[in-house]
Amino acid sequence: MMNGLTPFLALSFLVVALAFAFAAYLYVWVKKKPTKNKTIIDVSELIKKGANTFMTREYKILAMFALGLAAVIFLLLPAPIWSAKAQISKNIYMAVSYLIGTALSAVAGKIGILVATLSNGRCAEAAQKGIKPAFLLGFRGGAVMGLLVVGCALLGVSAILWIVGDASILLGFSFGASSLALFAKAGGGIFTKTADVSADITGKVELGIPEDDPRNPAVIADNVGDNVGDVAGMGADLFDSNVAAMVSALVIAQSLGSGFLNTAMVFCYAFLGLLASIIGIATARIGKNGTPTKALNSSTYVTTAIFLALSAGATALLGFSWRIWGASATGLLVGVVIGLATDYFTDDTKPIVKKVAHASSSGPAFTILSGTAYGFISALPAMIGIAASALIAYKLCEPMGGSFPIFGISMAAVGMLSTVATIISNDAYGPIVDNARGLAEMGGLGEETIEIADELDSAGNTVKAVTKGFSIGAAGLTVISLLGAFMTEVNDAIRAAGGAIEDLITSFDIMDPTVFFGILIGAAIPAVFSAMLILGVDKNAQRMVAEIHRQFKSIKGLREGTAKPDYDKCIDIATTGSLRELLPAGLVAILSTVAVGFIGGPKAIGGFLLGNIVSGLLLSLFMSNSGGLWDNSKKYVESGHEGGKGSEAHKSAVIGDTVGDPFKDTAGPSINTQITVVSLVASLLSALFVSFNLFG
Amino acid sequence: MMNGLTPFLALSFLVVALAFAFAAYLYVWVKKKPTKNKTIIDVSELIKKGANTFMTREYKILAMFALGLAAVIFLLLPAPIWSAKAQISKNIYMAVSYLIGTALSAVAGKIGILVATLSNGRCAEAAQKGIKPAFLLGFRGGAVMGLLVVGCALLGVSAILWIVGDASILLGFSFGASSLALFAKAGGGIFTKTADVSADITGKVELGIPEDDPRNPAVIADNVGDNVGDVAGMGADLFDSNVAAMVSALVIAQSLGSGFLNTAMVFCYAFLGLLASIIGIATARIGKNGTPTKALNSSTYVTTAIFLALSAGATALLGFSWRIWGASATGLLVGVVIGLATDYFTDDTKPIVKKVAHASSSGPAFTILSGTAYGFISALPAMIGIAASALIAYKLCEPMGGSFPIFGISMAAVGMLSTVATIISNDAYGPIVDNARGLAEMGGLGEETIEIADELDSAGNTVKAVTKGFSIGAAGLTVISLLGAFMTEVNDAIRAAGGAIEDLITSFDIMDPTVFFGILIGAAIPAVFSAMLILGVDKNAQRMVAEIHRQFKSIKGLREGTAKPDYDKCIDIATTGSLRELLPAGLVAILSTVAVGFIGGPKAIGGFLLGNIVSGLLLSLFMSNSGGLWDNSKKYVESGHEGGKGSEAHKSAVIGDTVGDPFKDTAGPSINTQITVVSLVASLLSALFVSFNLFG
Repeated sequence: MMNGLTPFLALSFLVVALAFAFAAYLYVWVKKKPTKNKTIIDVSELIKKGANTFMTREYKILAMFALGLAAVIFLLLPAPIWSAKAQISKNIYMAVSYLIGTALSAVAGKIGILVATLSNGRCAEAAQKGIKPAFLLGFRGGAVMGLLVVGCALLGVSAILWIVGDASILLGFSFGASSLALFAKAGGGIFTKTADVSADITGKVELGIPEDDPRNPAVIADNVGDNVGDVAGMGADLFDSNVAAMVSALVIAQSLGSGFLNTAMVFCYAFLGLLASIIGIATARIGKNGTPTKALNSSTYVTTAIFLALSAGATALLGFSWRIWGASATGLLVGVVIGLATDYFTDDTKPIVKKVAHASSSGPAFTILSGTAYGFISALPAMIGIAASALIAYKLCEPMGGSFPIFGISMAAVGMLSTVATIISNDAYGPIVDNARGLAEMGGLGEETIEIADELDSAGNTVKAVTKGFSIGAAGLTVISLLGAFMTEVNDAIRAAGGAIEDLITSFDIMDPTVFFGILIGAAIPAVFSAMLILGVDKNAQRMVAEIHRQFKSIKGLREGTAKPDYDKCIDIATTGSLRELLPAGLVAILSTVAVGFIGGPKAIGGFLLGNIVSGLLLSLFMSNSGGLWDNSKKYVESGHEGGKGSEAHKSAVIGDTVGDPFKDTAGPSINTQITVVSLVASLLSALFVSFNLFG
Repeated sequence: MMNGLTPFLALSFLVVALAFAFAAYLYVWVKKKPTKNKTIIDVSELIKKGANTFMTREYKILAMFALGLAAVIFLLLPAPIWSAKAQISKNIYMAVSYLIGTALSAVAGKIGILVATLSNGRCAEAAQKGIKPAFLLGFRGGAVMGLLVVGCALLGVSAILWIVGDASILLGFSFGASSLALFAKAGGGIFTKTADVSADITGKVELGIPEDDPRNPAVIADNVGDNVGDVAGMGADLFDSNVAAMVSALVIAQSLGSGFLNTAMVFCYAFLGLLASIIGIATARIGKNGTPTKALNSSTYVTTAIFLALSAGATALLGFSWRIWGASATGLLVGVVIGLATDYFTDDTKPIVKKVAHASSSGPAFTILSGTAYGFISALPAMIGIAASALIAYKLCEPMGGSFPIFGISMAAVGMLSTVATIISNDAYGPIVDNARGLAEMGGLGEETIEIADELDSAGNTVKAVTKGFSIGAAGLTVISLLGAFMTEVNDAIRAAGGAIEDLITSFDIMDPTVFFGILIGAAIPAVFSAMLILGVDKNAQRMVAEIHRQFKSIKGLREGTAKPDYDKCIDIATTGSLRELLPAGLVAILSTVAVGFIGGPKAIGGFLLGNIVSGLLLSLFMSNSGGLWDNSKKYVESGHEGGKGSEAHKSAVIGDTVGDPFKDTAGPSINTQITVVSLVASLLSALFVSFNLFG
């Protein structure tokens, strides 16, 4: 343990404690709000039960997977226990740190479900009193999760580094967070979209009954899905991104070998970001002439401004490098810019959503074509933003020499994610108010309340796009710095194997055919991975649509509303199906990394990671944005444009939304995690790839 | 001029003469076949007129563009005429060779239209006598084009090298072919899909009248589109690929500097490939128990086998390197494997098409989702194939040292395209029989004849997928070797600018942030490019659908078949719209290359080219294959499965096909050309990027 670091770790623990205390306060605040409506309480209970059933079954499978992998890690990492250089204690640390990563990721998901299912009904009832109290309920419910997720990440990283003192053990922790996030995102994503798509297709299109109509057998499953996919999955995802960004910065900081200051800086920026978020969350509310969208966005901007000020102060006070501060600030600002660009393509007050809505009046094929096309175009600003922030961060830190430029890139990612607690709060707000809208409808709270809930929901959709910009951008930057971490690990392995200096890898040259080989295959993997998830939803939704048709045929009085549908059957289909589809896609990503490593060696893996990042960023931006675009185009039509509800344009827009659902909530955001997992697998197995390969 | 090369150039001219003579024979053979049906003759004439109108207007615009660009080339390339080292004669050569490239590309397109519009009616009438004579007519019509396109390419390359003696001047020729192909493909692609999509949407979906029904105002435009898009555009595309592969091999061969033998080898393989194609074409026919698909595929296999035998013989006889022969053979065989993989995903006797057809019965969203997912997965085998063939070619030639490994990769591309004359014949067969089917319907030749035409058409669709595998694969390999050519050009420029040895570029390291910057932006360009083309079709088709609606409202008796629609108005909309949309997408690709070059310098451009190849290959494979998959799923449903025509599954499948149309016939295949154009622009401007840039 470096002694100079101790105060920074102590401060980290202090800010974590503060965040947990504030979260507890908000939790109690939410819990104290009244619930009266019998139906809402009942349905809310059904949703909670469904979500917990799924989570329990999912975590059982993932626990077995994690234990198996922990055993493999214990045997192999950081060095095989049978090798001469192995230190058994390190292998134990690595395996345990992996398990802690998975456990904290699971906790993050579980907390999300707990708070979200607590808030949704209360938010619906608060909407009867107006938009302001309802907003505050949804937002503070989400904030509990945001604070706890980021607190857990900082706590885990600080504690492990405090105990072990070696940042490379943190790769195990990060891998634990990622591997669980991969499956939680995939499983939850398949669940939520199975239910959502089936409910929409049968309800809105075939039967012509409203969204969230209690006669629809899939309606509870749909609301459960919002929780297990958007809340738990998203929480695990951002926990993972946050950990990966910090860990890659810490690994590089330690390799810089110039004292504790750089390591301290990572922790300092992380706890200042959390502190800024606490302030941003505490001050968020709808102002005099405000809207929910403005309130959410202003919480992001307030957090951003406070973080920039605090981190500049700390840099001045503690003598950190201004160049690295500049890199962090660049990351954060580019994150905001990417968010704004995304907003342009998905906000229904901007022209693109209107164009797609207009195209819908010519038929569904035009909805799909125009949405696909704008989705592709929307990737451009974010790609430029990520490319530019990496270039600027690198060039800023280049005069510092050594590995500092790569450290600069990793600090850009840390900067981009510094405000992540606020971002998660905004993001978790979405499914809470989405649920609240459903509950308001089912509880018969009246047209006015539903309209308020609708407005809250629409704000959630728009802001989601902005926050996704952050998480995709940060994943891009993190993975670039992980590429640097991978090269460091490879060279350590080459040295350990007795290789000479000229054997060390100093570059991954795209003209090297082994690198190129890796690039092409790496680029294909996100496409295959997302395709498998989409097919999972597709297959599963077909099963559920068949079940819904069966119920409407066999249950008499269902259509008239005199009989109740069998909600549990639909929840069961979604659960079983998504658990069946969840492992294969993730395994394809992990095993293809292993295969390429053993065929082409470390150079091929360098290429593989690059190809994976490039096509992964492109596809996840495309899918997230086109999905958001279709969703909001549908909402735009439903609000009375292009013929409004029931028109041909509406039918087309619903089809677009259905296609977009698994794009934006299953495949798109899972690609993020897939990229991180693949990078970590590569770093962890680098020694094996150096020793055994066919062509490298 | 190297004297040892003369016999090889002479043999090239001889084989070209042979190919032209054979083409002339086939042309006369086709022309002698009878045409009797009055309607068919009339409609055939309308199609020809429409196609010629479009081509004339398109070529007028492109001629101005080409002349402008030729002036720029004269001023700047290979060195600015005001610079000390400029040789004015070289600048003239470069500009003239550019213009010859554009002119031959235009000729290739024009010839295609001529023969296709000659064959379509005759093929329809021949179908009355049975499938065998009709097949032969369609195939031989296509073969005229295949022979002439490849003959022109070999003639142009041989003649310019014979006169100038400097392979780098051929970059101008290749750029001429590419730049024209880019716009011809984009313009023709937008035209054909505007008409096709509008005809399908209004005819099949809204009015419930059959495909090619003469009451549909868009029906002639649709048939014109087959010619200007699939025939002329495809011809220009493959002319370009073929030229680019040869030229990049020749540039590298000359830089190898070990006598004329390597240059001779390129020509030798090129004319042997043409010879093999002549034999393959001459022997193609439907056997005793054969089908059109088998006949087309066997022509490919016969050509492949003959080329492998001939080139092995030549290698043994003339003392060429067996390693390089191995690289060529690998390229060719991988091309066949890619084709077979593509076939698996798009042939309606294989499971994938059936799965998508089945998904369609749950609604159009499932058609889109499953088609998208399988389209993504289908990219994997081709990506692996291209990666593996590049790696194998490189490793085979690595022991030869120097630039031989890169030469090996370029010869893999030459090998993959050696059979291109047969491939074009198979490809051009498609739109001819597609037209014939339309004419059989309009000419009232009876159900039996239409069924024969349908069978011919379906074979065309399947084989198209296989041939696309070749052209995408070859583009991938060619561009890798162009990346090598680019590095050579950059280093020449650095030396010319007085740079020291340590300034020379020896690698494009993905860890270099300038390279990485280029990679990310390069990866976004094919997405933006294809999006612009799709939006072009989308906008244009909306205009045409509105016009069709207008005609059905305002022309009395149209629905009943007693009045004639205004075909010309639809042709005019398609023409005007596609000419308006054709330039911007191409300019985005070219200008973004220039912008990245001036911002990041040659290293950024190296990354840009890589990002462009990687995402370009992924997206073009995805789009071509998912488009083919949707088209054949629709045909599969129409042949009586999943409820057959008029069922819900059919409606969904038609929507899938409509989405797939611009994917597979506008955007997908245009990306190929876009990649080549960008690579050539980069090579040509390398000296400027070395001299002027912001960060490099």
